[in-house]
Amino acid sequence: MVTTAEPVTKLVEAFNKLPGIGPKSAQRLTYYLLSRPGEEAKALAEAILALKEKTRLCSVCFYITDCDPCRICQDRERDHSKICVVERPSDIPPLERTGKYNGVYHVLHGPISPAQGIGPGELKAKEFLSRLQDGSVTEVILATNPNLEGETTAMYLRRMILPLGIRITRLARGLPFGADLEYADDMTLSQALEDRQEF
Amino acid sequence: MVTTAEPVTKLVEAFNKLPGIGPKSAQRLTYYLLSRPGEEAKALAEAILALKEKTRLCSVCFYITDCDPCRICQDRERDHSKICVVERPSDIPPLERTGKYNGVYHVLHGPISPAQGIGPGELKAKEFLSRLQDGSVTEVILATNPNLEGETTAMYLRRMILPLGIRITRLARGLPFGADLEYADDMTLSQALEDRQEF
Repeated sequence: MVTTAEPVTKLVEAFNKLPGIGPKSAQRLTYYLLSRPGEEAKALAEAILALKEKTRLCSVCFYITDCDPCRICQDRERDHSKICVVERPSDIPPLERTGKYNGVYHVLHGPISPAQGIGPGELKAKEFLSRLQDGSVTEVILATNPNLEGETTAMYLRRMILPLGIRITRLARGLPFGADLEYADDMTLSQALEDRQEF
Repeated sequence: MVTTAEPVTKLVEAFNKLPGIGPKSAQRLTYYLLSRPGEEAKALAEAILALKEKTRLCSVCFYITDCDPCRICQDRERDHSKICVVERPSDIPPLERTGKYNGVYHVLHGPISPAQGIGPGELKAKEFLSRLQDGSVTEVILATNPNLEGETTAMYLRRMILPLGIRITRLARGLPFGADLEYADDMTLSQALEDRQEF
């Protein structure tokens, strides 16, 4: 017999669908909200609704934005001659937090993935290449993920950009900060050796 | 300069307020919802609103319910002569899942906590004791948590129930299933020794 109130079960199920939230966490979150004032749950629900209702993709770089073009594309203080290409909107905040980059971005919305049937046509690749046509861009930084799909995507873009004579760079590979040599994987260590720098 | 759309930042902050969800998980959840169809985010928001709007506390046992009395208190198949006392509504689902208990419950909504200034008056303790007055209850199972506050609460209730001549039991203490003797803490091991059973 079902002894739990239906709204409780339903929210546990909804939380459980989110990535990284198992049945126990889903239950804990639900009972937490039950124990808090109604306004807190309402604020969360409204923030979730606003997320989808009040954001869209920037028509220039395809980042998530509440104004168009997005704040980054609109910013005249930034260097619009550099474009950093990323797979996902969520890749931009960590790059911004470094404070080391003052150019603009382009979000592909995924890597090329032959296994999943995703080619350049499914991504915002054509839109990216058309941004390079007026000659104002002098450097493209390929910041796709350092894995098989990200590499495939970077290789494809490199082939398309090369004829345009634009500088192409990619993020450095090597040991992450705080890493332990003993536990580093072979690929990372090989790359760290190959790309070793004068010190 | 802020480069992230406000609705994104706001939802990251709202998720980050939930227990066990750090800034990175909050960001991951937000971008996950952004990547999914709008209906999925809407369903989650609505489940959160329904949780608070469509549930209340059972007027008998103070469990969370969408009908009053709750499904457990209404159930004539259950043994209403046994009451299991728990600290939190979230303690009931795990007890129900065991399938070993067919009595009813009483939710105190917290343990007695002198450190936080919570005495029996702040809990549903008076309401519990009044359920014992008509003589229909023959056993009280104290299922407060096996920690200092839970023990204090159990001791208090025991003192109040004793004069009524009702059987008082509490959940067994000992080694948890799958435990490793080598790593068991002293308290657990002492209790397991003291309460050792014929085999």
